[in-house]
Amino acid sequence: MNRSIAQLADSLRDGNRRSIARAISLVENNAAEAQDLLRKIFPSTGKGYRLGITGPPGAGKSTLTNRLARLYRQQGQRVGILAVDPTSPFTGGALLGDRVRMTDVEMDSGVFIRSMASRGSLGGLSVKTREAADVLDAAGHDLIIMETVGVGQSELDIARAADTTIVVLVPESGDGIQAMKAGLMEIADLFVMNKSDRPGAEQAALSIKMILGFKKGSPMSGEDWIPDVVQAVASEGKGIDEISRLVGIHREAIAQNGELARRRRDRLEKTIRELVDEQFHVDFWTADRTSIVRSEIENVLNRTLTPYDLADRLISDFRK
Amino acid sequence: MNRSIAQLADSLRDGNRRSIARAISLVENNAAEAQDLLRKIFPSTGKGYRLGITGPPGAGKSTLTNRLARLYRQQGQRVGILAVDPTSPFTGGALLGDRVRMTDVEMDSGVFIRSMASRGSLGGLSVKTREAADVLDAAGHDLIIMETVGVGQSELDIARAADTTIVVLVPESGDGIQAMKAGLMEIADLFVMNKSDRPGAEQAALSIKMILGFKKGSPMSGEDWIPDVVQAVASEGKGIDEISRLVGIHREAIAQNGELARRRRDRLEKTIRELVDEQFHVDFWTADRTSIVRSEIENVLNRTLTPYDLADRLISDFRK
Repeated sequence: MNRSIAQLADSLRDGNRRSIARAISLVENNAAEAQDLLRKIFPSTGKGYRLGITGPPGAGKSTLTNRLARLYRQQGQRVGILAVDPTSPFTGGALLGDRVRMTDVEMDSGVFIRSMASRGSLGGLSVKTREAADVLDAAGHDLIIMETVGVGQSELDIARAADTTIVVLVPESGDGIQAMKAGLMEIADLFVMNKSDRPGAEQAALSIKMILGFKKGSPMSGEDWIPDVVQAVASEGKGIDEISRLVGIHREAIAQNGELARRRRDRLEKTIRELVDEQFHVDFWTADRTSIVRSEIENVLNRTLTPYDLADRLISDFRK
Repeated sequence: MNRSIAQLADSLRDGNRRSIARAISLVENNAAEAQDLLRKIFPSTGKGYRLGITGPPGAGKSTLTNRLARLYRQQGQRVGILAVDPTSPFTGGALLGDRVRMTDVEMDSGVFIRSMASRGSLGGLSVKTREAADVLDAAGHDLIIMETVGVGQSELDIARAADTTIVVLVPESGDGIQAMKAGLMEIADLFVMNKSDRPGAEQAALSIKMILGFKKGSPMSGEDWIPDVVQAVASEGKGIDEISRLVGIHREAIAQNGELARRRRDRLEKTIRELVDEQFHVDFWTADRTSIVRSEIENVLNRTLTPYDLADRLISDFRK
């Protein structure tokens, strides 16, 4: 263990903001020291509660996050926010301008805010978000909010890393069928119909409720929890108390019925599998094996060698 | 090699529709025989041209695919269509009702149509789509159209598996900035602004063109090809000839400048990596190792063991 990593771990556990920021940067840049650090701080994790907030672009997730953070802060909780933007590598994080609005919350030292943008693979982003959440957790944040833009697979993965997941929609998001198609019905513990001062809000909320009722009766639904649908106007602070109240009820319910422990156990199992995969990649893809693929690829292109036979050859070499 | 698999390979190479359907089912169900079959037919692949069609739900991709298939069919080409629906496991393929409209094309035995729905992991869907395309390719289809719903990571992966990718938008899809955020700018070889009889079509097409122009000037852009934006009304057959003409131009251009060979080489390298990963998973996750994780997970949950140390232990056991 690198001595400076041990110091960094100690310092972030004391809640030092600069150390927290540096630790998340190590994670984000996939630095060699990141895994040492995560190993070191792991025993201090598991205390923070993880709240996922997801939904389509423009649904007002930042504003809602802002308001919720302020409320929890007033209740004396330390809040960490990860604003995840899984947009393309081409745009990078350049379009995160709306985070500017968060400044009044961030001024308060009880709230730590970090934007995380996709650099390269999207798959990696959900791993890095979980690792950054571990950093915030070890640093003593009582509540860790993971806010993700969009409703793709990567966002769903990030949502699944939360203890409670809020899906934010607006009246224009489309009906319940579309929410179902986007996979939102499976991940939502609570729906927020934001911007409910707009026309069609009642109807949109009702359409979600109807599908939820249908799902309840479906043999595919294994759980007892039926998500509520809260109508809110986050920009005016309307509905925030109710959202926080329902998050509290969900938290209590899953702590009681064992669902929270099950979610956390699944998450840790997934982490172990990801670590095994990552280590395998490092061990397997040596410069030698990479150059074998490069030199044989022409034979695969002209169909004198199949990818299946080449893969077999590489694996049997690895295992002997 | 199983004798019936060898027969199936021969029969699908003869273009037998029932055999093609059975082969794709093997791939879709991840049957043990699927890899044998794919290995066997691999030498017969690489002749079909792969056309990706993607875009948000409701953009009219099925209709466009239908019209394009009819046109290519009139030119005497054999056309295979894979309609990929990466929606949630909860909905399954139940919402694929719009494929009914394809019937008039499918009646024609020169067109083979298959819907592929996500069963379980989305990551797996892009692999299965590529494998199903290999089946259609080996069966002698000149053109293989891969149509995907949505614009998430999985859909982008499927689009990347095409030689030419068409991104279908409608005037309501939002502006060029949103298309850029969704990662569409990187994958599109051609944009189709469908339903261009609706208000705002000109402006929407212009906004895409402006972003494309900006991208051309960007140092991040490594390629010479600037996608065209075609205005179309697929339901009335408007713009279909122009789309097919521009696909032809793109095809010719990438064949000339080496980009087609580069794309196919990258695809095969990716296939080899996926096969290695898959084999590793089968070899690594024996019943023994799975049960070690199950029995140690409580220690990880109560923080007396880190996931990092557990992963290290499993890997060193595997390699010795």
